[in-house]
This record gives sequence, structure tokens and C-alpha cells, in this order.
Amino acid sequence: MTVSLATTTPLKSVRELPTGDSVQGFYLLTKIETRPKKSGEPFLIVELQDHSGKIEGKMWDNFSEALESLKPGDPVFVDARLDHYQKLPSLVLTSLRKATEIEVPDRRSFLPHSSLPATQANERLVRVIETINEPHLRALLDAIFDDLSFRRRFLETPGGKAWHHATVGGLVEHTLSMVTLADAICGHYPQLHRDLLICGTLLHDIGKVQELTVEPALDYTSEGRLLGHIAQGVLLVESKIRELDEFPGELRKQLLHIILSHQGEPTMGSPVKPMTLEALALHYLDELDSRVSAFEQIRARTPERQEFSDYQRLMDRFFYFRSPDEPDTGEE
Amino acid sequence: MTVSLATTTPLKSVRELPTGDSVQGFYLLTKIETRPKKSGEPFLIVELQDHSGKIEGKMWDNFSEALESLKPGDPVFVDARLDHYQKLPSLVLTSLRKATEIEVPDRRSFLPHSSLPATQANERLVRVIETINEPHLRALLDAIFDDLSFRRRFLETPGGKAWHHATVGGLVEHTLSMVTLADAICGHYPQLHRDLLICGTLLHDIGKVQELTVEPALDYTSEGRLLGHIAQGVLLVESKIRELDEFPGELRKQLLHIILSHQGEPTMGSPVKPMTLEALALHYLDELDSRVSAFEQIRARTPERQEFSDYQRLMDRFFYFRSPDEPDTGEE
Amino acid sequence: MTVSLATTTPLKSVRELPTGDSVQGFYLLTKIETRPKKSGEPFLIVELQDHSGKIEGKMWDNFSEALESLKPGDPVFVDARLDHYQKLPSLVLTSLRKATEIEVPDRRSFLPHSSLPATQANERLVRVIETINEPHLRALLDAIFDDLSFRRRFLETPGGKAWHHATVGGLVEHTLSMVTLADAICGHYPQLHRDLLICGTLLHDIGKVQELTVEPALDYTSEGRLLGHIAQGVLLVESKIRELDEFPGELRKQLLHIILSHQGEPTMGSPVKPMTLEALALHYLDELDSRVSAFEQIRARTPERQEFSDYQRLMDRFFYFRSPDEPDTGEE
Amino acid sequence: MTVSLATTTPLKSVRELPTGDSVQGFYLLTKIETRPKKSGEPFLIVELQDHSGKIEGKMWDNFSEALESLKPGDPVFVDARLDHYQKLPSLVLTSLRKATEIEVPDRRSFLPHSSLPATQANERLVRVIETINEPHLRALLDAIFDDLSFRRRFLETPGGKAWHHATVGGLVEHTLSMVTLADAICGHYPQLHRDLLICGTLLHDIGKVQELTVEPALDYTSEGRLLGHIAQGVLLVESKIRELDEFPGELRKQLLHIILSHQGEPTMGSPVKPMTLEALALHYLDELDSRVSAFEQIRARTPERQEFSDYQRLMDRFFYFRSPDEPDTGEE
Amino acid sequence: MTVSLATTTPLKSVRELPTGDSVQGFYLLTKIETRPKKSGEPFLIVELQDHSGKIEGKMWDNFSEALESLKPGDPVFVDARLDHYQKLPSLVLTSLRKATEIEVPDRRSFLPHSSLPATQANERLVRVIETINEPHLRALLDAIFDDLSFRRRFLETPGGKAWHHATVGGLVEHTLSMVTLADAICGHYPQLHRDLLICGTLLHDIGKVQELTVEPALDYTSEGRLLGHIAQGVLLVESKIRELDEFPGELRKQLLHIILSHQGEPTMGSPVKPMTLEALALHYLDELDSRVSAFEQIRARTPERQEFSDYQRLMDRFFYFRSPDEPDTGEE
Amino acid sequence: MTVSLATTTPLKSVRELPTGDSVQGFYLLTKIETRPKKSGEPFLIVELQDHSGKIEGKMWDNFSEALESLKPGDPVFVDARLDHYQKLPSLVLTSLRKATEIEVPDRRSFLPHSSLPATQANERLVRVIETINEPHLRALLDAIFDDLSFRRRFLETPGGKAWHHATVGGLVEHTLSMVTLADAICGHYPQLHRDLLICGTLLHDIGKVQELTVEPALDYTSEGRLLGHIAQGVLLVESKIRELDEFPGELRKQLLHIILSHQGEPTMGSPVKPMTLEALALHYLDELDSRVSAFEQIRARTPERQEFSDYQRLMDRFFYFRSPDEPDTGEE
Repeated sequence: MTVSLATTTPLKSVRELPTGDSVQGFYLLTKIETRPKKSGEPFLIVELQDHSGKIEGKMWDNFSEALESLKPGDPVFVDARLDHYQKLPSLVLTSLRKATEIEVPDRRSFLPHSSLPATQANERLVRVIETINEPHLRALLDAIFDDLSFRRRFLETPGGKAWHHATVGGLVEHTLSMVTLADAICGHYPQLHRDLLICGTLLHDIGKVQELTVEPALDYTSEGRLLGHIAQGVLLVESKIRELDEFPGELRKQLLHIILSHQGEPTMGSPVKPMTLEALALHYLDELDSRVSAFEQIRARTPERQEFSDYQRLMDRFFYFRSPDEPDTGEE
Repeated sequence: MTVSLATTTPLKSVRELPTGDSVQGFYLLTKIETRPKKSGEPFLIVELQDHSGKIEGKMWDNFSEALESLKPGDPVFVDARLDHYQKLPSLVLTSLRKATEIEVPDRRSFLPHSSLPATQANERLVRVIETINEPHLRALLDAIFDDLSFRRRFLETPGGKAWHHATVGGLVEHTLSMVTLADAICGHYPQLHRDLLICGTLLHDIGKVQELTVEPALDYTSEGRLLGHIAQGVLLVESKIRELDEFPGELRKQLLHIILSHQGEPTMGSPVKPMTLEALALHYLDELDSRVSAFEQIRARTPERQEFSDYQRLMDRFFYFRSPDEPDTGEE
Repeated sequence: MTVSLATTTPLKSVRELPTGDSVQGFYLLTKIETRPKKSGEPFLIVELQDHSGKIEGKMWDNFSEALESLKPGDPVFVDARLDHYQKLPSLVLTSLRKATEIEVPDRRSFLPHSSLPATQANERLVRVIETINEPHLRALLDAIFDDLSFRRRFLETPGGKAWHHATVGGLVEHTLSMVTLADAICGHYPQLHRDLLICGTLLHDIGKVQELTVEPALDYTSEGRLLGHIAQGVLLVESKIRELDEFPGELRKQLLHIILSHQGEPTMGSPVKPMTLEALALHYLDELDSRVSAFEQIRARTPERQEFSDYQRLMDRFFYFRSPDEPDTGEE
Repeated sequence: MTVSLATTTPLKSVRELPTGDSVQGFYLLTKIETRPKKSGEPFLIVELQDHSGKIEGKMWDNFSEALESLKPGDPVFVDARLDHYQKLPSLVLTSLRKATEIEVPDRRSFLPHSSLPATQANERLVRVIETINEPHLRALLDAIFDDLSFRRRFLETPGGKAWHHATVGGLVEHTLSMVTLADAICGHYPQLHRDLLICGTLLHDIGKVQELTVEPALDYTSEGRLLGHIAQGVLLVESKIRELDEFPGELRKQLLHIILSHQGEPTMGSPVKPMTLEALALHYLDELDSRVSAFEQIRARTPERQEFSDYQRLMDRFFYFRSPDEPDTGEE
Repeated sequence: MTVSLATTTPLKSVRELPTGDSVQGFYLLTKIETRPKKSGEPFLIVELQDHSGKIEGKMWDNFSEALESLKPGDPVFVDARLDHYQKLPSLVLTSLRKATEIEVPDRRSFLPHSSLPATQANERLVRVIETINEPHLRALLDAIFDDLSFRRRFLETPGGKAWHHATVGGLVEHTLSMVTLADAICGHYPQLHRDLLICGTLLHDIGKVQELTVEPALDYTSEGRLLGHIAQGVLLVESKIRELDEFPGELRKQLLHIILSHQGEPTMGSPVKPMTLEALALHYLDELDSRVSAFEQIRARTPERQEFSDYQRLMDRFFYFRSPDEPDTGEE
Repeated sequence: MTVSLATTTPLKSVRELPTGDSVQGFYLLTKIETRPKKSGEPFLIVELQDHSGKIEGKMWDNFSEALESLKPGDPVFVDARLDHYQKLPSLVLTSLRKATEIEVPDRRSFLPHSSLPATQANERLVRVIETINEPHLRALLDAIFDDLSFRRRFLETPGGKAWHHATVGGLVEHTLSMVTLADAICGHYPQLHRDLLICGTLLHDIGKVQELTVEPALDYTSEGRLLGHIAQGVLLVESKIRELDEFPGELRKQLLHIILSHQGEPTMGSPVKPMTLEALALHYLDELDSRVSAFEQIRARTPERQEFSDYQRLMDRFFYFRSPDEPDTGEE
């Protein structure tokens, strides 16, 4: 059987193979260095990654060409067999070479992806935009998302670097989740201007398309660090508004205000605080959805029998994972 | 026609009567003092209040008995006619006396009331409790709300002293509004434990029944100041839990945690931060609903042609009231 | 002699006239209301303002037409004589009427003005721009300031509402003062990119042209409150950059970064902190120049024999005004 | 000689034995893992602990059964001899096995203990309670401490996890130390209500009995993390008050207030600030006694010739240990 | 009977005289201004103060000479009779003139005084100094307090401007109160260096002698504002140390450290935090004693039937004054 | 050729020698320890430092005497040859011994030095002092800097421990840089008292002479930690002022105020905030010059192709190093 990217075993499955099984496939090289063997000779240590996880690999001999030609961030082809050391799986490599562009056309395949598939996200995005009745907001959304190259990037942008929705497609997943919440509260608080709130939701994090990159790895762009996604967002939206005919001044002011204020506080990066009802509401929905995502992401990383997460510096607390229905532990 | 409390014209309507109209009825006296007339003689100045608003009154003569016998907080009967000075309406009193207990059996009639009538609030409360399937939570809610005297007080407690839902019945209005939101997000985040979240919502502010009073005016009780509604709430819920058979330890821990952490931060009065998913979610719904209520309360107090509210110290911002659909003001 | 706006005595001089002197001229009406005379009859109290100060006025009779037709913000013609009550000067008016548009073509004449005349500021601005050698920055500055209507507004915008440079023309005065400082430190730190630093200085507060207004009084525009001058500034500069050919990406990024970060801290309104040398330097020059201006403005308001200013809430301190060369007060 | 827990040499003494001395006894295993020998073969590394300190141990051969059957937290029997490597003592083990429940009935023996023996603490506690004259406070203390199982746990609870009084018995040591201070200041400030202050002192940290555990190691219970010792404390005291006849409302309110406010500030975990004289006083005595304890604990951990402690993050400072009477170091 | 300062009735007693009683005596004039009578004529309003309180006075006629010659801060002689208006006592003056230096040699007589008489404070100070055994500390204290003019000023300096011990003699009262506390805890914590702690206590606020003045009123000196009592304190102590022979370096370092760090935190004015045991202990005793004093001072100002004090901004709380032994108010 | 300290090759150059080159010379030993060879035998690992950088060294045999006799901080003589392991240079030592006091009279030679030579700094210092016209300030500066031993220490004191100007001579370099800035702004703001500002600049960090030491390494003295350079500075200046005749009180007050307030905020170590114009100006110049120095120091430590520095905790940001003139990276 010929190995292709499509038939490569995900690393999550690789880690569960029995000792000695052979593994062939394409992965992302994320670390490469040498260490001394007990004999004093060097051996090669690498780290491999794909969308499903990571694994360590060792190569005992004949690695000088690989060491010369490869660097972290390179897609590689690997021929190896699974080994275990102190119960931890690792790969013993017999072959390691750079993959060609034909073999791996897109390194994004190796990043974790949102559970919401891009095509489905796209469809829901289209449908949401169609519900906007206010003609100027509708025209603005069309102007932004009808740019297919932009839309494709929007669909793959992460929601954040590390904290929440930190996956390819995380941004649109977060955005659509907030749209559902926004629709629910519009029913509850009829004084909310639904079209403005939904439009604001779709655009509140639009600057992240420029703030974050997934190439060569999920990180900030230098423009992202120097300007921040809030300023990038209003610059992008304003430039589209200027291309439209007669976008109403009041609507523009309130839409830009929503984007500028959505983090809620200056210390969180918003130069102004929410002053309109829609800006206030959007801010709390953003908090809610990003915290729920962060909670689940941390729960997924925490070993199952652990009641509490490790300490989470960003929220200055532990998270607690026991179900309210579980029996008491009898702890006093 | 005999005047009774029921037939008394609300002050909001009184303020819109034409100059010279006569006014008779029962109000709450909130201020009483004398000032010198131009002639040097004193005259009486009073402030009257009912659930709909306030008005100033003056009495030029024969007020010595009233001045002797009345004090702020007394319900009074008033015979007067409407006057205007620099366009502001006021009452010129010809008679002012204390109302009897038969005429005004309950001073609460003079306080602002939630727009949600108590009977309707009560029905919705009953229905919500019936949706709780988890038997221990259901038993706990029954134990708390089946105490009719407690339930009556719960139905009239304000949501706060000045900031949001500061009306008779404000607490239950706020609570039920959050229940609707909580139900909506349970659909969206299926991992939430709905019964715990709804039960937590119903009980999160339960300590306010003891923290706040509406007699003789909306204010903190001394126990409310010394303990705070969060501690009062957990003490109340815990005492009911102890009366129940075999309330599960894990459920108790998580329910008390929700009440303790619902303000979100120590600086807001919560000794612990939300660590469970339900506690996190409830906190943001509480923020959302209380801010929306505060926004509307401030909007109602702001003169209509004013774009911005006065500066709001508690939220360190102005609020903005123009509709997104209004035409631009042409301001640069 | 016919009285015109040009020959009207400034209020600062009026206040120093002897009792009984007659005063005729044009001023801005800033307050108008009635109070009861000792006889019980109402009299009129007004406040008048011009660029040099304020004075109170009273009108004992025949003011009903004035009271009907005038409101705060109207320019008025006044015929009066100076009076003193408990050593404070005030005007006793015999005539008060609205001034015509011919008599007072521009209410800005009544606001305090920067000590730097607009024509001189304009000349210095032109000369500074001519020193910029980097062609794209030069083209950008030309594109912005060659718009004569924009430049005229730039020349009259205040530097702030109340704190520093709160005068007509305060913004350009502050901007040019910082240019001088920036030039001085470029000599001292040769690693600074002079053209970027000077261009950043000219543009750092450019958003204040839209954030503040002097009509009808020095205040924030509603767009100013909702977006803030930092966001307004980058939107304005970006829109001009987009009109230019091939503005280099790196230069744009660093220029926008300077504008976004110039307040130094998120709590001061900057969504990003200064990360480049030019952004760092500009921030400290801005602090220095605005504090020196604030200090002098407060010194000017403080009675001469007072050693300390009143408490300054914004800087949480008193200012001290004695010269280091003055003899000791002998105070312990 | 048969080795028992009682005759086991404390590790503090073991560390001072000469190289080669043989060591046999019972300790707590706190770490167990393998490392490669120079030959490439693995050897075993363990960490052992008892109440007096820690030591590292190595086992070169025949450790596979130990590695299989033991985990951190197990009490073990050890046969070894003392070795030194770069002046640091360590044990070379020849035998390592799990201790039986008969050999080590209680792992608490391996934890550091307060210098105040439990029996002595108990006697002093009894005597303090006897000095309380106010009958309701006396009845409450009796109700709490006459529960012998509770009292035993109170006597062994630590004062904190890491910071101060972090020993078995640390809570009662801290409590009794504060009682002495409280008695001293009652003499100085006669307006203090002595019985309330002493009772508040005895109960202020009572929730730590439930917040902290010493099994399997000194740590927070999950209830401790979710509720905190302040809420746990008021719940415990309130439940005892409800069992008593006619506990006066005012006294209850003030006692609960003391417990709730004793940390002084919301950011320190107190939902309300001290508002009564007794609450204020108790807070400062608590600060004083816990800081003195922390200072001494850090002093004990700091090598003798070091003038300053390492940086103490929790108090954001270094501590300084030289005696004021020592001669100057001639520095500077 | 001739009226002298000594025989002047204290204002606290004056306020309780019956209407119409005549009052003659010497007081401090703290306010003087005119208001219009109902007839339009002006009358004089003054405020008088002595050590025991304040009272308002009115003078209906013949006050032009008084108005010309008097200013706030002047000691005056008053001839008046007591009146009541709306139950508030005030004086109706028939005569008002400046007091001579012979009549009122020292305006300090009109300020509130510590309840600890200066002679008694002086004796206790002497006795405390005698208990210091460490010869250098003893010599330092002698050098400072043997300067009689300095000691006299020390004995009359207030403990603060408004917050605690804000009376003539408040500093020494606070200092000696802390000495008693310090002695008590030296018994409890024998590791404390008693002589250093007592000496530090006597000197910790010594800079207040220069920071505060009671002439013409209790206020900061300009040096006090510019340097602060902490810097003034170390400058004073250091200058005395330099005059002594061979003051040991270690002792000097630790003593100056105590003075510099006694406020505990930079935000409270201490440039370094307490790092020695004596500095830590002194800081908490200072907090305790100043808060107890503030509590009592506020209690004294609060009307007796009020349960809570007014809101205290400096401590961000209310104080509660009911005795724990009072019966419950029946409030829920 | 005989090797002396003067002819020793700087380590920065040593690191660029070809493999195998022999190296002989004097360096500072900063680390010394053993590690096991592959054979199990120990070998010696050392770290050497001089003013230009660091290098690692290994010694395979015959190092027992060196290991016995040497400790970190010792100056050593080294005979070695350069080796490379994984491209990193290191030294293989054949000889290692302690240098004599004659060979290395001053370990400061091994510390990084300011790029401003001490003699040049001294000359500029002299010239600046000569420009002071105010006779008392001039006399004070003379009194301080004419003490040659003090001046020598001033010239070698670092500007800080780690953050900015952390080199021998860093303090005077920073001081003179600020003098240049101060002179520039005195031209711009003529209301500044130039002599006071320059004198304040020369003395603002004078306490660092006592706060920091370069022996045995750049660190705080214990007096520096306990008192801080701000208190040490005012103590030093005050003691010199006391030695002068008739130093004017006002000048002293304002000079000491400048030193006390120059850090700007209590949280930065200043017990009072700048209240005079000179104190304000000096504070911002200090911020500017120290941040520019820190920026350059971090830039020097950052690998050249890295756009951003590592995260800088002290300023809570990254620094960005690309030139504004560089072509865009094409990054989105």
C-alpha cells in the first residue's frame, strides 16, 4: 500500500499501537536535536505533530543528512516502529526525510481543527447573513464575506492563540455559537436591535483574521502584535463601509463602537467601554462563550480521574470537573 | 366622590394636570420642613411620593399642627390644587393630615413596583420549580418556597438598593428573567446540568430577602450589612438542606459553590471564583440581566432628547440611547 | 462710538473697572434664570463669558422679552454699568438682546484661545512638514494637511476638554511643542528614526479633530465618546494611506502603532503598549508636555499667594508653586 | 534490635551520620522513578520523608518488585547505608518494601508537627473556654468542642497549606497564640467585649478543619476549594447555633460577622470588611500572628549565614535575619 | 464677674443652655460673612469654635467694624444670648471684638486636646525611655527628647490631620498606647528585640512633628506635603545618630528601616516593606491602634441611636456600634 | 609572550577563534562543578566571565586541586584550547589556578562596563557642575563630588541591577544623558529653574552609590534593600547640606522633594509624587532615558533575525526591532 497524507495514521491512534508495530506516514516536525547515547555517541531526538496530537521519536544511526536538511516546521515522511519506555510510547525511526509539496500541499493539515467542519460553518454563515434585514448592514456583510479569499481565511482562523477556540476554524465556530446566543436573547429582550447585534457578532473578532496566522504555526503576526485585533477589525470594517454607498453615520458609529468595546474593559484591550445596549449584551455573550470553550478545552487536557484542573493563571483559579450527579467522595 | 387609596390619582398623572386643578388623595410624606416667605414668615415645604413618582408641595398657612404631628415616612391625606412655577408643577396644599391605618393599610403601596405583577411572578415561579426533575433539588426548592410567609417576602424583595431591579418585586423579576436565559443556553450548551443551573438561578440571590428591606424604606438591614446576601444565602440554603433526608454531598457542594461565586470576583463580594461550568454560566447571565436592567432604569430617568446618560459612577461610563436607525446628527 | 465685537472690552478688563462705569458690548450668554427679589418679585440673573473670562449680571426690570427669547449659548449685546457686591464685580444690565449673525459671525471668538496664534501655528506646521525627507510620510502629511478645511479645523481644535491645552488652538500648540522636544531628543538618541517620530508626533492626536468640538461649547462629540480619539485617529490616517500609491507596509504598521500606543497604557486608552523605540519616546514626550501644560494652567487658576494648588483629582496630588529662589517661610 | 516506628531514626539525624553508617526504619515514600546508570542500565531514585525532613535514596539493583508495587504516599521500610555525593547525604538502599498497617498505623506520623503538643493544646483550649462568662457563647463553644471527634480533628488541622503554621496542630497553635494576644489587648482597650473577642478568636478559622486535610498529604479538600474556610466556618457555627436554645440574634450577627470579615479585605477572601471593634482587632491580631509565624518558618528554612531569605512572592519582599546586636559587616 | 479664658463656658455646655441665657467669653472665629435679611438688609453670620465644639452666631446690627477688622482664625470676645431656631442652638451677638494677646495668649486652647494630659504623657515618656537598656538606643532617645523645645512640640503634635488621634497631643497618646501593646507582645514573642521595638515605636512617627502644625489650624506644613513624615522622620533620626559616638551600623540600619517601612505598603507611603520581625510587628500594632482610635473618634461623632456610622470613605466601610449584649431589634 | 590581564584576549573574541586555537589568560570564575563522564568518572565544568561575555570550560583530568581551592567569584588563570560541540564554542582546560592579587588587582575588570569611559564621564561631570550658577547648589555639588573617594565610587556604580544601565559606570552614564535632555528642555520651557533641575538630575540617583555594589558581583547591599536608594539619597544630600553654611530652606525642600519623588509613584518607590515643575520634568526624563537604555540593552541581547524581543515581564510587553525603512515581510 502506498502511504499518502490521507492514509497516514493519526498520532492519537499511533500512541495506542502495541510495541513493535510499524508506522509510516507524514507528520509535522516540531523539534529536532541530538543527545549523547550512553556510549557517548550522539543520537537524534525529534518531536512529531499532527492534528490529533504529538509523539517523540528517536533515531540511533544514519541521521546526519536528516539533521543537516530539516528544521522545525518542516513536513516529513517517517518510517518507524513503535517502542515504549517507562510506559510512554515513542517512535524508533529508520527513515526520516522532508516531504514534498505534492505529498503535503498544506501544513495546516497538521494543526488541530475545530469540530465544526468548514463547509458546514460556511453554510451557516451564509444563512445567518441572509437573515439580516437592515439593508446597509446586509450590504456590508456581503461586501466583506463575498470576497472569497477573505472568507476562506476567515473560515480557518483560530479563535485565539492558546486560551479558547485555539484551533483551525475556531473563530467561525465561536462566532456562530455567539450568533445562536444572540438570537436567543433578542427574543428575551425585544428592545435589542437584532440586525445590529447579529452583524456586530459576526464582525466583533474579524480583526483576528489579520492578528493571527496558522503558518508556520498558530501565532500572532507582527501586525497583530503592534496593532491588535480590535484596531485591525475597525480598520477593516471602516474600509468596507467607505466603499459602500451612503452607509448611515449613526449605524457606522454604533457598529464600530461594538467592535471597539467588545472586550469590555481597557485592561482587556478595549479602548472604550460598552455604552449601548447591543455593545453591553455582545460583551457578556462573548465572555460566556469564550469561557465555556476554555473550560471544555482545559477539561479535555486534564486526566480523567483528576477532580480539579491544574491552576489556570489567566483566570486565577482551578476548574472543577466532577458531575453534580456523582456520588460523594466521602471526604469530610 | 369619596377618595380612597384605590381612587387616588397617581403623582405621574397629577404632574400633567392643568394649573389650578384640584387634587385629593393619599401619598407618602418623604420630606417636611419650613422656609421663610418673602415677608419673613415661614411656610411649609413637603415632598410627596407614590409608586409612580414624586412632587413638591407648599402650604402657606395653618400648618403648625401638621408640622408638629408629621414626620418623613408617614402616609398622609392631602387636599390641594396644582400650581406651576417656572414650568415645574407643585401642589399648593389646603389640608394635610396623617392617614389612618384603615385608609393606608400598607405603605409599600407607595414604593415603585416591578412591572411583573406578584401573582404572575408567583405562577411562573411555581411552574419553573415543577420542571426540576432532580429529586433532591426539587425537594429543596419545595422546602424553601412552600413556606408561604417566606415566599411572600421573596415576591416583594427588591433586586437591589439603587442599581438594578430596585423595585418591590425586583428580585423575582430578575430571577425569572435569568431562568429564561438559563433555559435558552442549556439548549445551546448541552453539557450544562440544567436542573442545577435553574435551581442555582432561583437561589443565587435568595439572601437578599434578608439583606434588604422595604420597611420603612428600601434599605439594607443591619444583618445585611454585617453578613451580606451571599453569606445569608448559603446559611439559608444550608439550613434547609439539613432538614432534608440524604441530600447528596456533591450536589450540596456545587449548589453552595454557585451561590458563593455568583458575583464572579472577590472584589464584587464573592469569596470564591466560579470553578464549575454552571457557576461560570450563571455568573455571566447575572451580569447580562442586571446590566440590561440598569441600562433601562437609567434610560427611563434620562430626559428624552439627551443622547447620553449622565456619568454612571458604578460602571464608570456614560450610556448612549440613540436608536441605530435614527438619522445621523450631521455632527462631524 | 459704535460698539463692535472688535471694540468690545474683554471681561477680564471689565472686572477691573471702577464701580459705576458703563459697559457696552458683545458676549456669550452662558446662564439665564430668575430669582426672587427681597420684595418677592423676580429679577434676572445671567452669566456672560468671553475668551478672557466670565462675569455675573443682574437685570431688575423689563427682562421678560429677554427671558423669553434667549437661551444659554446665545451671543448677546449688553448695555450695563459695573457694580460691586461684597467686593465681587457684577453688571447691572439696562439692555440685553440677542446679537445678529453680522454682529457676531462666530461664537468661537468667545472661547479661550491658545497663546499661539493660528497663523503662526500654521506657518510652523508647514515648515515642519517640509523637513520630512521620507517620501511616503511626506506624501501622507501633505494628503492630510493640504485639505484646507481639515487643516482649519485642526488649527482650532483644543488639546483636551478640561485637563491640558483646553483652548481653541490647543491641539496644534501641544503638537508643535512636542515637535520641538522630539527634534531635541533625535539629536541625543541618533538611533531614533526622526521622520517617523516627527510624523507620529504630528498625527498622534489627530483624532481629536473629530473627538472634540467647540460648537456650541468645548465638549466631546458623540462619535468621540463612542469611538475615542485613538480609534478615530487610526481610521483617519489609514483612509489617507489607502489613497496613496504604495505606502510601505512596514512604515504603515509602525505609524499606526505609534498612534494606537501613545497613551502608554490600556487604562489610559491605548489598546497596545509602545513596543518600538519611537513609540516609547513619543509617549514620554506627550506625558511631559501635557503635564507641563496642566501645571501652568492650574497655576494660572490658583490665587497668587497660595503655595499649593487645590487638590488635583486627576493626578492625585497638589501642585506647589513657590519659586526655589524665594526666601524660606520660617515654617518649621 | 527490632526496628519500629518509634525507634526509627529521624531523617534530620540520619543526614548527619558519617558515611557508611547503616540505617533501618520506616519513612514516607514521596517520589519513585528510574534513571539510566552510566552503563545505560536503569537505577532507582526515591525520596523519603518524615516529620523532621527529607532525604534522597538510590537503589542500584533488584528494585523491579519495589518499582511495581510502590507509589508516592506509601509508608515503606528501608534498609540502607548512608553515602555522600558532593557533600550531600543520600541513602544507598539494599531493601525497600511497603510497610504494613500494623507497622505504620498512621501516616500523619511522617508530617511535620506543631511544637505545641496536642495534649497541652487541648488543656489550654479547655481552660480558655472556661473563662467565657457570656452563657450563650460558652454554650456554643461547648457544643462545638465537646464533640470529641471534631475536637480531635481540630487539634491536628494545620493552620495553612504552605504559608504559616503549616504543620499538624498548626491551627490550634495559631488560635491559642491569638487568644493570648487578645487577652493582652482587652486589658489595654477596655471597650472591647472580651468574651466575644475570645470566642471569635477560637472560631475564626474553624472552617479550616473542613478546608484542609492531612490525608494523604497536607492539601485542600475539594469542598475547601469550592467553598473556602470562611463560608465553611459560618455554616458550621450557624448549624451549632441553631441547635442551641435562644441564642441572641445580636450576638449571632456579630459573631458571624467576625468570622466572615477576619481576612480584612475581599481580595483576601472576606466578603465583608470588619465593621465592629472586635472584628477590627481580631483581624490585626490574625495578621500579626500569622506573619510572625511565617517569618520564623522562613527563617528556619534559610541557611544560617544568609542575611536575607529568598524572595517571598506571597509577601512580595525578602526577610532579613541579622540580629540588631550583631556587629556591622563593614559593607558600604 | 470678669470673664477670662479660664472662666469661659465651653461651647459644648453653651449649646445646652436654655433659650435666652446670656453668654460671654472667648472663642476662635472660624467663619465670618454676611447674608441678606428678609428686609434685604445684610446681617452677620459667624462660626465660633473652642476645644469642645462649635456654634453658629448671628449679629443683626452694628457689625460693620467687626466685619472690617476680623478674619477667620482670630480669637474673639463675644457677648451674646442663646437662641434656638428649629431646635438648633445659636448665639445672637450684641458685641464681637478681637481678643488681645493678653486675653488669649495661645490659640491652641481652642483646639480639641487628647484626653491624655501633656504632663502625664511627659512622665510616661520619661519612664519608657528609662527602660531602654541598649546604650546606643538610649543615648539616641536622650539626644532627641532632652531637647526641651523639641519635646514640647512632640507633646502637642496631633497624630494626624483628620483620621485618627487628630487632637493636640494625639501623637504622644498614640505613641504611648503602642508602647504598651509592644511591651505586651514582647512577652508573647520572646524573639523580638524589645529595646529596638520600643525605640522604633517612640520614633516611628517622629516626622509628624515637622509634617503637621496646629498654627493657625491643624494642617500640613508645606515641607510636610513635599517630603512626608516618613522622610522627615529618618532625616531627623539620622542627624541625631551622626551627632552620637559610634552608633552601631547594624542598629542604625534596622532602626531607619522600621521608620521607613512602618506604613507597611508603598501605596500607604512606605518606600520599603517591613523585612525584619520588629518592623513587621510594629506595623500591625500601628494599624491596630490607629484603627481603634479612628473607630472611637467616629463613634463619638455619630448620633447615639444610629446603629451604623456614616460611610467612611478612607476605610471604605460603615462602622457598627451596637453592643453585642443588646437585645435583638427583631429585624428579620 | 607573557600573559597579563592587559593582554588577555576578551571572551567575545575567544568565542570566534577556530577550533583548536590555544587560549591563555585571566578570567572570573563564576561556576565550578563536576559531572559524570560517559565512563562514570567525574569531569570538571566551569563558567568563565569577563567584561565582554561568558564561555563554558571543561577539564577532563587532574582537576582535584582546582576543585578544592577555587570557588565562584575567584579570578583565575586559564590555559586551554578552543573546542566546538554542536557549533557552540567551549574551552578544554589543561590548567586552572587562582590568579594572584598582583595579576588581577581588581575583579571589576571582569564586569561589563559602560561605553562611556570613566575619565570622560568625570570630565563631563566637572564641566556640568561648573555651569551651576546658584551658589548654594554649586557649593553642595562641590561638597559631594570633591570627596574623591566618593566620586570614584559614583563613577563606577551601575545604574541598576538588571534592568537598565546595568554596567560599571552605568549610573554616571545615565545621569549625564539626563543632563543633556534636561538642558534641552530648559530651552523649551523657560519657566524651569535650570540650576535646580540640573542639580536634581545629578543627585536624583545618588543613593545608588550605597544601594548597589559591584563586589563580589553586581547586587544590592543589605542597607540598599532595607532603606532603598531614595531614602539613602536624601540622607546623603541632607548630611552634606547640614555641613554647609546657610543653605536656604526653600531650596533644600525642593531639592529633597525632587529626589524623593523622582520615581513618580508610590508603587515605584517614591513616598511622595512630583508636585513641582522641576520634579515633574525630571521624572519624565528619567523614564525616557531608562526605557531607551533598557530597549537598547534588550535589543543587544536579542538574536538579529528575531523581529520581537522575548516577553519583557517588567514592562509587560514585547519590544519590536525592525527598522521602519525595511521592506514589508509580505505577511498578511
